[in-house]
Amino acid sequence: MLGTVMSFLRCIRAALGIWQIQSRVRIETSVVLPQVCSACGFVRWKNTAANCTRGVDYQSPNTRSRHMTVGVLAGTGAVLAYGLYRQQVQQAEPEGNAESARLTPSALGNEVQTSYPIYTRQDVTKHKTMADGIWVTYKSGVYDITNFVDLHPGGKKIMLAAGGAVEPFWAMYAIHNEEHVYQLLEEYKIGELNPEDQKQAILDVTDPYGNDPLRHPVLKVNSFKPFNAEPPLEILSENYLTPNEIFFKRNHLPVPEVDPRKFSLEIVGEGMKSIQLTLQDIKTKFPKHTVTATLQCAGNRRSEMNAVRQVKGLNWGMAAIGNATWSGVKLSDVLKYAGLPEDTDVKHVQFEGLDKDLSGSHYGASISIRKALAKDGDVLLAYEMNGEDLSRDHGFPLRVIVPGVVGARNVKWLSKIIISKEESKSHWQVNDYKGFSPSVDWDTVDFSTAPAIQELPIQSAITTPCNGDSLSSDDDEVTVKGYAWSGGGREVIRVDVSLDGGETWQVAKLTGEKQDEGRAWAWKLWELTVPLPKGQKNLEIICKAVDNNYNVQPDTVAPIWNLRGVLNNSWSRVKVTIKSPNRD
Amino acid sequence: MLGTVMSFLRCIRAALGIWQIQSRVRIETSVVLPQVCSACGFVRWKNTAANCTRGVDYQSPNTRSRHMTVGVLAGTGAVLAYGLYRQQVQQAEPEGNAESARLTPSALGNEVQTSYPIYTRQDVTKHKTMADGIWVTYKSGVYDITNFVDLHPGGKKIMLAAGGAVEPFWAMYAIHNEEHVYQLLEEYKIGELNPEDQKQAILDVTDPYGNDPLRHPVLKVNSFKPFNAEPPLEILSENYLTPNEIFFKRNHLPVPEVDPRKFSLEIVGEGMKSIQLTLQDIKTKFPKHTVTATLQCAGNRRSEMNAVRQVKGLNWGMAAIGNATWSGVKLSDVLKYAGLPEDTDVKHVQFEGLDKDLSGSHYGASISIRKALAKDGDVLLAYEMNGEDLSRDHGFPLRVIVPGVVGARNVKWLSKIIISKEESKSHWQVNDYKGFSPSVDWDTVDFSTAPAIQELPIQSAITTPCNGDSLSSDDDEVTVKGYAWSGGGREVIRVDVSLDGGETWQVAKLTGEKQDEGRAWAWKLWELTVPLPKGQKNLEIICKAVDNNYNVQPDTVAPIWNLRGVLNNSWSRVKVTIKSPNRD
Repeated sequence: MLGTVMSFLRCIRAALGIWQIQSRVRIETSVVLPQVCSACGFVRWKNTAANCTRGVDYQSPNTRSRHMTVGVLAGTGAVLAYGLYRQQVQQAEPEGNAESARLTPSALGNEVQTSYPIYTRQDVTKHKTMADGIWVTYKSGVYDITNFVDLHPGGKKIMLAAGGAVEPFWAMYAIHNEEHVYQLLEEYKIGELNPEDQKQAILDVTDPYGNDPLRHPVLKVNSFKPFNAEPPLEILSENYLTPNEIFFKRNHLPVPEVDPRKFSLEIVGEGMKSIQLTLQDIKTKFPKHTVTATLQCAGNRRSEMNAVRQVKGLNWGMAAIGNATWSGVKLSDVLKYAGLPEDTDVKHVQFEGLDKDLSGSHYGASISIRKALAKDGDVLLAYEMNGEDLSRDHGFPLRVIVPGVVGARNVKWLSKIIISKEESKSHWQVNDYKGFSPSVDWDTVDFSTAPAIQELPIQSAITTPCNGDSLSSDDDEVTVKGYAWSGGGREVIRVDVSLDGGETWQVAKLTGEKQDEGRAWAWKLWELTVPLPKGQKNLEIICKAVDNNYNVQPDTVAPIWNLRGVLNNSWSRVKVTIKSPNRD
Repeated sequence: MLGTVMSFLRCIRAALGIWQIQSRVRIETSVVLPQVCSACGFVRWKNTAANCTRGVDYQSPNTRSRHMTVGVLAGTGAVLAYGLYRQQVQQAEPEGNAESARLTPSALGNEVQTSYPIYTRQDVTKHKTMADGIWVTYKSGVYDITNFVDLHPGGKKIMLAAGGAVEPFWAMYAIHNEEHVYQLLEEYKIGELNPEDQKQAILDVTDPYGNDPLRHPVLKVNSFKPFNAEPPLEILSENYLTPNEIFFKRNHLPVPEVDPRKFSLEIVGEGMKSIQLTLQDIKTKFPKHTVTATLQCAGNRRSEMNAVRQVKGLNWGMAAIGNATWSGVKLSDVLKYAGLPEDTDVKHVQFEGLDKDLSGSHYGASISIRKALAKDGDVLLAYEMNGEDLSRDHGFPLRVIVPGVVGARNVKWLSKIIISKEESKSHWQVNDYKGFSPSVDWDTVDFSTAPAIQELPIQSAITTPCNGDSLSSDDDEVTVKGYAWSGGGREVIRVDVSLDGGETWQVAKLTGEKQDEGRAWAWKLWELTVPLPKGQKNLEIICKAVDNNYNVQPDTVAPIWNLRGVLNNSWSRVKVTIKSPNRD
């Protein structure tokens, strides 16, 4: 079907012949001039406006749902919409209606513009509402797509990119990877991005976080300093591999800036001589391995625990999880090179990051030597994420990837490995990231009584629809989507979905890469399209997953509540209403 | 304290001097003559009285509970009761009250009896009520302990041994391992066990099950042919190592009788030459290893699923689980000896048992080569259980022990190992022992869509008090006990107990052997003594366990219900009433 439409469009394009030069003429129905608006931007991320935490005009759940109903029209719809847009252009042009045409900086006449104004990222980020104009960037270009918003075949989902880069979204929706889409975008070009902004850093030498990198404005920020943010839930499960820009970011401290030429990794251990490896050493001395692995923060879905009783910790939603390919070298190869005997009696491998607090204490964590050396443990010292160098937020130039294990042990900005009989003495290993009984409070907690979280339990969550969404009773069906994952390399074998609060269940369709037994490090995405129950005004939609050890998720949150709000893997529950559009 | 009492009793004994010869005189207040009674016995196990499935006068839960309150008096109580009994003997003797003394066959005068009547096990099993007299066996002796029942410091728990051997219970309650206890028992001797009964087999050549071994009458039988039985729940968690006689028995077919001198194990595989090993070969060619591991039937706690909706399968209670030491040789050593290369690309190790159906099909199952060869997988070909040769019911002379994995793969009466690229084609691997969504019924089930159960999920259950028990409001405290275990070598790190249906929780005390990371094959026993809530008439007591992957048990049964009734690991729930003895 797509192929047929594409062929048709190519024929039309060839017949008309005029597209390439006419593409600089833009017909619009309203005039919105670039202006310095009062909308919030990256500057707010420097905490100058603490009450404004969102970098995008994020709709309420109800609005969002309606947009998403439109949004599912991607695919051939993108091509058809492009055709529709071309028709509008052609109809407008012969009339030469200059009055109704707004000439953007990129459309000063009928000829291809070769020089553009320079904008900063901060300029761009100020344009993310229809009132201020919707600007986006693609590579070094700046585009005002205000008037394309209503034409976008994917509906208002395009607003997720407002004020920022389109790349992560195009990576998620492969339909954009077409020549005509790039051509279409080019028609909206208004400027070039300031070359200085390629550095992607906030510069404020008075602030420990002043050198943190810039982030994509679509992220939902849970904390600015240190920076902790997750993507909007409804885009999380759109792609099996989570684009780097929207992959949740969980920093404990300011982001170090590392000169890769000066970087070195130190490896020390009892009975071993200490060694140093440069980044070049790491990349050339050891074979490169790639692993697809899901990382999840221990605090993922903490907000649901907060709804039971307040916990201490960042109020993560359900998107503090992501899946990526990680490339680097095997930790076991490096440890062998460093002289660690295979039959060592040490028990732990400690990691230290370059990130440090004001007292000079570094972030640290450890894993067991058993996991580190296991043939099928796949622990990496990774320098690439989804085929690109690690970004600064994700640990450039080197981080640990411990598949199947909680994010906190996947130490970023890795600078030191210590082979030891002891666990890391780091606060985050010893006095944090542990689970307790609901009865334990801050007066009674004894962190020594619980083991550090390592491999995580079975997990799943509903990403679509969202809690509070309103579905139309005119729709025959509803599609429920989400992710499912289990720690320890255990494969998810089934996801059950209920539309009636857990009374009855249906089995969702799973998608994902096939991985070896005991090495199912990557999540599965799932979806289920089912008839919308008739005559009901409210649904409680639930999902629960099962792994190949037949571990299941607990029904409710309260019995697994714990004072740190970690390890929430209870059933994911979403309440939606069904409304009759005719009666509304 | 115990030491003091013992010393005191030793002094008394030495001072009196007369005990050894007077111990044949028995003073009793009623006369119960041996008789052939109509009570049920082993004969009923041959299915001649299908409505009589219990080999013991098993009290109602309420009665049992009261007995158990007495039962906790073991320890020094046993010694004190012995002293009390001696006093009674001494007081009676000087009066020479022949009228009030019943002379048992073992007490024909004051002299030590040297010859006894011969009884069969079937004779013994007919004596398990107070009306019929309570007989037990110890080694080759037969004892009428009717009049000791009320003196037993452990209370009516002694009735569990009625009609059978005392050994498994003495193994559980170490207090019996005292010289004076053996002496005390000797006073009740009435006969010798028929030497033929040492063979411990039902002999009926017309019945495929006619050569099955005799079993201890305390077992709760779920099926006679094949024989499937579990111990009474309240004694299950009394000992860390479950005595062999009461360890749950899960047979799929008649029990083979194997001559160990003729036994041989065949090992075949693609690209390997086939080899045969005798039992002697196995015991002498490979190092002996011992592993403490819990075995659990996939159907453990199935009866709770039946309470939701009927499933197909044996109606197991909560005791289809047990913990034992297993000794034998490592499967990996044997496979290496057989020529299996370490880097083999085969995926499965299939096992065949000698047990077969009428068509000649053997029981079979398989595990992954990954588990079979894992250094810390600890898969054994075991010939001993708790330090003794395997019993016939547990797979004599050789069985597989796959720690952390469902019982069904721990193939008994092992006769053949097949290294293969394929899973076992056995019914029990392919079309059984798999989990499904609650929505799947026998019309829609497709066994190919689910993986064979291997490693099991986190589990725990309450063994004391029992559901329906009545506690006394005069008691200040209640002690809750149970077991907890997780598959895959994951250690149980916590058990939470609630006395209010899950509203609030308290952490139980765990006991168990320390095992290495990833090799926590054995269960933990747990208990919690807490104040009995005042002013309440009903309690719902719940337990739920957490393993070191922080997997937890689901709250309820219905959402994990499945048509085969396997994998019930929901919270264990017990409802008890609290009664005021004064008002009753």
